[in-house]
Amino acid sequence: MNGYSIPKATLGRLPRYLQYLRGLPETHRMISATAIAKALSLGDVQVRKDLATVSGAGKPRIGYETDKLITDIESCLGCERLTNAVLVGAGKLGSALLDYDGFEDFGVKIVAGFDCNKTARKKGTKDILPIREIGGYCREHDVKLGIITVGMGSAQEVCDKLVESGIEAIWNFAPVALKVPNGVRLKQENLALSLAYLNNQISK
Amino acid sequence: MNGYSIPKATLGRLPRYLQYLRGLPETHRMISATAIAKALSLGDVQVRKDLATVSGAGKPRIGYETDKLITDIESCLGCERLTNAVLVGAGKLGSALLDYDGFEDFGVKIVAGFDCNKTARKKGTKDILPIREIGGYCREHDVKLGIITVGMGSAQEVCDKLVESGIEAIWNFAPVALKVPNGVRLKQENLALSLAYLNNQISK
Repeated sequence: MNGYSIPKATLGRLPRYLQYLRGLPETHRMISATAIAKALSLGDVQVRKDLATVSGAGKPRIGYETDKLITDIESCLGCERLTNAVLVGAGKLGSALLDYDGFEDFGVKIVAGFDCNKTARKKGTKDILPIREIGGYCREHDVKLGIITVGMGSAQEVCDKLVESGIEAIWNFAPVALKVPNGVRLKQENLALSLAYLNNQISK
Repeated sequence: MNGYSIPKATLGRLPRYLQYLRGLPETHRMISATAIAKALSLGDVQVRKDLATVSGAGKPRIGYETDKLITDIESCLGCERLTNAVLVGAGKLGSALLDYDGFEDFGVKIVAGFDCNKTARKKGTKDILPIREIGGYCREHDVKLGIITVGMGSAQEVCDKLVESGIEAIWNFAPVALKVPNGVRLKQENLALSLAYLNNQISK
């Protein structure tokens, strides 16, 4: 199944379905859209539509085979073939992301970290390599995705290096608007911004 | 100025304006909406509208006084009176957030961390306290915001404790749909989900 045909909002909910389904006891071989909707506090119709997009219609009054539904969602999320990613900037946030294994459930494997140190070292099970080696590494390991966790001062430079290395998508945590060429996907993450939203809604 | 009157999309852009304006040299005493729009790759009309909402109209052909504009944006974001926040779950991600000072620029100060350890300890400049002390601490320090970085298994329990402690808003990093009473704001952060989006758009 080609991910491009799935509406973005549906795609956004797939990881939640997947997480819920994976957490069900093995004896739970069938599951209805209604049960999922209830468990996740979502609308019945919405869940039904999402699942239909991903896995076709469920059986009337019975629903979906749990295993089949899990496989179909994994397939949409690209979990069956992991995308290799590198992370640049092994500071605190970068290290936290490097150590986090949960991304593999969503189809992405961070294969190495890079920073400005001149010598390679280990961080847990991952190599942290000198940034000058990034081009060769990315080409050799078929890396498609770059995660930027450096400061705002060097983010654009790192971004350019990643693009030169053949990366197709960038996930940027540096609080700066990056410029990427057409064809390279960019997702800007701004954690402080989420907090600013919430804070604005608190009565003062 | 009451934050509630500001459209959410505008609010979302304010931190970027603020960051840009704070980074200008001191000699840059006036700034136009056009210059800001260009620097941040945003639309001219959009920036003009945003700034008008926050700070009224700029002077024709001159723009805004930089200092005044900074103050007005800070006021909207609630920076002039920091909201106290606590973080529960001092693992890798939690520690990264605890160490990050940038949140204060957006009106929020993380005053302490909590985890299930029975004895208090220090993490950088912040105290990590036993979770059983959270109620008293939050009431004593007028804590309004709770950040959850525990695993999905204990997130709802932590959430309930925060709500009991009088917290008004929750920023949840645990990948689970929390239930909160009416009147408590909830922002769900899902980092893996951002990655899933990006991954879905990469050609395989």
